[in-house]
Amino acid sequence: MVTDMKIGIIGLGSIGLLLSACLAREDHQVTCYVRRNQQKERLRTKGVSLYTLHHNRPSSFKVNAKSLGELDEHDLYVVCVKYPQLDEVIQTLRTKAPDNKPILFLQNGMSHVEWVSTLQQPVFIGVLDHGARRKNDHSVEHTGAGVIRIGALVKKDKTLMNHILDVLDTSDFPWIYDENPINLLKQKLVVNAVINPLTAIFDVENGELLTNPYLYHLAKGLCEETCQVLQFPFDKYWDYVKRVAKHTGRNSSSMREDIRNQNQTEIDTISGYVLKQSIRKLPYTSFVYNGIKALENRTGSVSHD
Amino acid sequence: MVTDMKIGIIGLGSIGLLLSACLAREDHQVTCYVRRNQQKERLRTKGVSLYTLHHNRPSSFKVNAKSLGELDEHDLYVVCVKYPQLDEVIQTLRTKAPDNKPILFLQNGMSHVEWVSTLQQPVFIGVLDHGARRKNDHSVEHTGAGVIRIGALVKKDKTLMNHILDVLDTSDFPWIYDENPINLLKQKLVVNAVINPLTAIFDVENGELLTNPYLYHLAKGLCEETCQVLQFPFDKYWDYVKRVAKHTGRNSSSMREDIRNQNQTEIDTISGYVLKQSIRKLPYTSFVYNGIKALENRTGSVSHD
Repeated sequence: MVTDMKIGIIGLGSIGLLLSACLAREDHQVTCYVRRNQQKERLRTKGVSLYTLHHNRPSSFKVNAKSLGELDEHDLYVVCVKYPQLDEVIQTLRTKAPDNKPILFLQNGMSHVEWVSTLQQPVFIGVLDHGARRKNDHSVEHTGAGVIRIGALVKKDKTLMNHILDVLDTSDFPWIYDENPINLLKQKLVVNAVINPLTAIFDVENGELLTNPYLYHLAKGLCEETCQVLQFPFDKYWDYVKRVAKHTGRNSSSMREDIRNQNQTEIDTISGYVLKQSIRKLPYTSFVYNGIKALENRTGSVSHD
Repeated sequence: MVTDMKIGIIGLGSIGLLLSACLAREDHQVTCYVRRNQQKERLRTKGVSLYTLHHNRPSSFKVNAKSLGELDEHDLYVVCVKYPQLDEVIQTLRTKAPDNKPILFLQNGMSHVEWVSTLQQPVFIGVLDHGARRKNDHSVEHTGAGVIRIGALVKKDKTLMNHILDVLDTSDFPWIYDENPINLLKQKLVVNAVINPLTAIFDVENGELLTNPYLYHLAKGLCEETCQVLQFPFDKYWDYVKRVAKHTGRNSSSMREDIRNQNQTEIDTISGYVLKQSIRKLPYTSFVYNGIKALENRTGSVSHD
């Protein structure tokens, strides 16, 4: 049985950096695909540095680094880019990746599902609940341990996926099989549609959605609308959203950080996606959608990396 | 004909200070009623200082200053306090002001109308579009010239009001008669219900509601809901709101300033009033109502003065 794999990580933001480090730590051969030459050089010379809560000094792991145009053959491709870059990445994978090698997509939102289902390669979909904070081009802080859940988009790819999971899953960095990855995405979508825009608009940590009664009211309204659209039972998912908000109480959501750093947010693939799925009016979702767009517009947001 | 009057100004925030200065400038005998002894002493010793856009040095005008409990007889009482203090002021006027002397109320919102109609004195209602910024306890900056429009709550008081207007109205500080003061309040309510909460939540100047397409969309939605409740024609009042936003483009709304300074806002008498008037759901109004409440709650807002 193979115990190490050649893995191509596409997109080296916080999640891509975390994956690169944790997979390289397990002796997999990791190649990082990035857009900027500066980041490519840094990754080549310095490797990926991983800071964890329990150690003051980071561990560094050797990785290869290339441009997307130089895409090699790998045993597994993991796509960690955000939506604005996804189109180019999918086009490249379509033409340059071997037909039989699996591609794992780790995006938030739901907008990519239809898109990636047109690839000839085996497509895996995953969500992760690790906390990760990018420190610089080649360093990441693992701020909260979690798991990665993945499933195959097409049933016939299950055997291949189980083989991949056998190799990747370790107690230090667990990978868990999920029968219905679309449901995983939807579940995460509910959380993101509630927590992300509210924490970004009101500039608060996640936990304040539970302690501030007015934010609680708005969160509940947003959750109701989202569950209605996704045909989810409200009570169950509202409990789930509250558990996540409690569990990540001191965290700053990715959307809040994007607004603070004047980056483009994922609002279109979260609240925007929910709005598109509904023929009924969703006033709270519409309000936060326009609100986040307004904040992006106000700060003169531009897309970084 | 009397050319100067004894006027009691109750509440010395930015509007009360502006009125005190402009009326004292016209040789009226102004008495300021304030809560804090420190402000009372400063007004007594320093008078009221008025900064204008065209002069570097302020002009100072002599005024008297007292506590509400020491209420004297005046030819006119002008109430400039915010809602939280209004109850105490009305009780005092009810017991200590002469029955035949008029009282002018200059509050935002609509919540006080029913309340003040129970007074035995002639009641005038007014709105003003002056720009004024309080600099300290006894100084105010006149940031934008405007007019004060007033009308009598009860028809039989019109003669008295016309007499008062004859005395007060000058080209430097115009007072204008309005047949329907309730409509004036409603008109101002539309403007306040749209501009105030949005500029406060998104921390922008008034003009950005016109230049940021997403804020424009939210403003329009709020205006639609408010006009529906007040039974106002939307097109006409949306044009009016846009004109005010344009005219006051570089201004920071009072609600935005209240949030910035951690003061209690007027959200209850603006969006809260609109919500109470409607049996239908008003989702955008409800969102901004809870949003402002959340910001007050987040900053640990307390009432000042």
